[in-house]
Amino acid sequence: MADLIQPRVLKGFRDFLPAQEIQRALLIETLTTAFRSSGFVPIDTPALEYSEILLRKSNGETEKQVFRFEDNGGRDVALRFDLTVPFARFVAEHREELYFPFKRYHISKVWRGEKPQAGRYREFVQCDFDIVGSDSAAVDFEILDLMRSALSSIGVTSVTIRLSHRGLFNRFLASRGLSGKSEEILRTVDKLSKIGNDEVKALLAEIAGAETADEILAYIQGAGTAPEDFEATLSLLERLAGGPGEDSRRLRDIHAFMEATGTASSFVLDPSITRGLDYYTGVVYETFLNDLPGIGSVCSGGRYDNLAGLYMKDRIPGVGSSIGLDRLIAGLEQLGLQGKKAGFTDAAVFCQDSADMALYQKTASALRALGIACETFPDQKKLPQQYAWAEKKGVRWGLFVAADKISLKDLTTREAYDGLSTEEIAKKIKEAN
Amino acid sequence: MADLIQPRVLKGFRDFLPAQEIQRALLIETLTTAFRSSGFVPIDTPALEYSEILLRKSNGETEKQVFRFEDNGGRDVALRFDLTVPFARFVAEHREELYFPFKRYHISKVWRGEKPQAGRYREFVQCDFDIVGSDSAAVDFEILDLMRSALSSIGVTSVTIRLSHRGLFNRFLASRGLSGKSEEILRTVDKLSKIGNDEVKALLAEIAGAETADEILAYIQGAGTAPEDFEATLSLLERLAGGPGEDSRRLRDIHAFMEATGTASSFVLDPSITRGLDYYTGVVYETFLNDLPGIGSVCSGGRYDNLAGLYMKDRIPGVGSSIGLDRLIAGLEQLGLQGKKAGFTDAAVFCQDSADMALYQKTASALRALGIACETFPDQKKLPQQYAWAEKKGVRWGLFVAADKISLKDLTTREAYDGLSTEEIAKKIKEAN
Repeated sequence: MADLIQPRVLKGFRDFLPAQEIQRALLIETLTTAFRSSGFVPIDTPALEYSEILLRKSNGETEKQVFRFEDNGGRDVALRFDLTVPFARFVAEHREELYFPFKRYHISKVWRGEKPQAGRYREFVQCDFDIVGSDSAAVDFEILDLMRSALSSIGVTSVTIRLSHRGLFNRFLASRGLSGKSEEILRTVDKLSKIGNDEVKALLAEIAGAETADEILAYIQGAGTAPEDFEATLSLLERLAGGPGEDSRRLRDIHAFMEATGTASSFVLDPSITRGLDYYTGVVYETFLNDLPGIGSVCSGGRYDNLAGLYMKDRIPGVGSSIGLDRLIAGLEQLGLQGKKAGFTDAAVFCQDSADMALYQKTASALRALGIACETFPDQKKLPQQYAWAEKKGVRWGLFVAADKISLKDLTTREAYDGLSTEEIAKKIKEAN
Repeated sequence: MADLIQPRVLKGFRDFLPAQEIQRALLIETLTTAFRSSGFVPIDTPALEYSEILLRKSNGETEKQVFRFEDNGGRDVALRFDLTVPFARFVAEHREELYFPFKRYHISKVWRGEKPQAGRYREFVQCDFDIVGSDSAAVDFEILDLMRSALSSIGVTSVTIRLSHRGLFNRFLASRGLSGKSEEILRTVDKLSKIGNDEVKALLAEIAGAETADEILAYIQGAGTAPEDFEATLSLLERLAGGPGEDSRRLRDIHAFMEATGTASSFVLDPSITRGLDYYTGVVYETFLNDLPGIGSVCSGGRYDNLAGLYMKDRIPGVGSSIGLDRLIAGLEQLGLQGKKAGFTDAAVFCQDSADMALYQKTASALRALGIACETFPDQKKLPQQYAWAEKKGVRWGLFVAADKISLKDLTTREAYDGLSTEEIAKKIKEAN
């Protein structure tokens, strides 16, 4: 016999045992329902693409992290590291087959060779939703509202979505003669939650001088941190940026839609949100759990003005967001919001005598036809062993079947019900569900 | 401006546009419901694993087809080429955390560098379901019955599942002194549907002599090709193999469960089914669409006696099956069984005046809260353009909203309904769905 191979997965990769995978699957199913309810449709793209397609726009950091290799045909290929670049390629390639505005969701795996650490994996699921082909405030709002409603649908109602506008900030910087330094400043401001006010101020002073650093901080601090400060902050930012513009009008329109739909209490205008060096050009946002702000944003996104510019001449504007599923699940667990489910089986037929197996199978089959998830323990083992198995699967109802009768047992209360027909059993189980 | 990159996918890889992806997603959702209803739970494993784990057991053919490379950390890694090998590794690694019998389903992508041809792709979805940790006829039957019921749940009711038993055939071969040639004979018999009776007979005659070739053909032809010939064929095979044995008793038990559950008409005992060189050791099976047998088996599987032998000492027996999703979808399309669905939106609010957008958003939001999938056209474009967009998304209901009233229009019949409340509109749409 050959030596055994040690069963193990690669560092940063994970198996999902049933309880974890059920949790993830149910979460994704609920999010999917929310996406569909707002007019979004699914697409899929390959896990593997030409490196040229995936990496042209990337900075060195991405390049280092990507799983890239030469395939058997000598092609330079890579595993996708996000769902945005493939989406841009997809839209350029299929623009004649699509219709605009186009709303898609895509929930799938991506791979990055990052140094594994707590909450960071080399394989993880991204959950993206975008609207492309419209530049209107309506679709900005629709993505923001979908972030709110999708999280709400999975029980996460106590959230704050913090938004700002890149263009407004850029206008402010331009008015101070800082356009050339905007990337550096954006990157610094983005560190606020990590390194604190004083350190950011010191860094900004190095870049722009002490006085301007104060002005930048006044800008990013706004007029208050509550949803009801939206208009006051907007007026302040407008004034600091030199007056109303397309950007501030956009924010005002979006706020009007929030008011009209009665959802304004979930949103805060927070000019410290910049999304670092991302490719966003308009509104940007991050989402925090009110009871767990420390874990960071669980859903972020923004508007971009040229989705597929690497692959086509026409400019396609869009707006989109991404839910960080791993972080969200970790948050739900910490908040006790995520119910545990070990399995889907409603009722198990126990095996008291293998000779009666045909009868057990018949009963299980009949109950399934009546809409009950039902299975049979296949071997005549000791009952405690069969009970333990049912308990591990989270099965509430046990069935003991003999030629002349069925006995139904509530495994949680040990109550037994005799002489019921399969129809009555199905009804009883459904009522209790 | 840099040169544009030609947007394209790798040969053998595919994008899925919304209509295709919706079709695939709905199919997978229905199959998932069937799996859960029979007590199966989901797991997930990484797309990328150590090559040592994936390839130890493989023959040269697999090795050539696999996407294998050295990662940035110098590890020899490969993309999984099936879901069976990772499952074996998973069971060995997590055996203390699992419970047995363990029923899992796994629907996910696998990659093979096969020569792309009609219906063959380098990236495709496998849909596997297995029961491990029981050697009983009950779980053999449960997999067979789940194949039947899962296909039935997606509207494929006219199928024939053809099964046989590797052990019975081996016993027959041993009785003719052909044990040493069994692999060669299995491989030859497996070609029956491709090259026909005469050629198989000629090949068998070369291997075993003309007289024995006749006997082998008599064996694999059985006593009839109908479900009701099960017992006659079984008696014939038993006799040819030298009398009853564990294998024939197993088939008889399974048949008894089919009879008990009223499903025997979907199953044929067909000794020509051998599953080639696969690792199966017991019952094996393939599934054919009665109206489209030419496309080959859409769901195949069998029993194996040592799932995880490469990774652990204990033998874990199991039985499992895999649905060929691409082939099945192609078959459904040919049979006209697969409904087309362009989107999930029930109702679209058209944009007649951008100034009213807050009102449109409010209406769409109110309808979504009432369970209607609703979205707003975000830009004030010409109505025919908005209608065309709604038609491409398969939207049946249009809404025209002004400050004082809502008009609902059935876009298929052009009937209009005025003066309804959002509640009444939701009710009307639900009733029509």
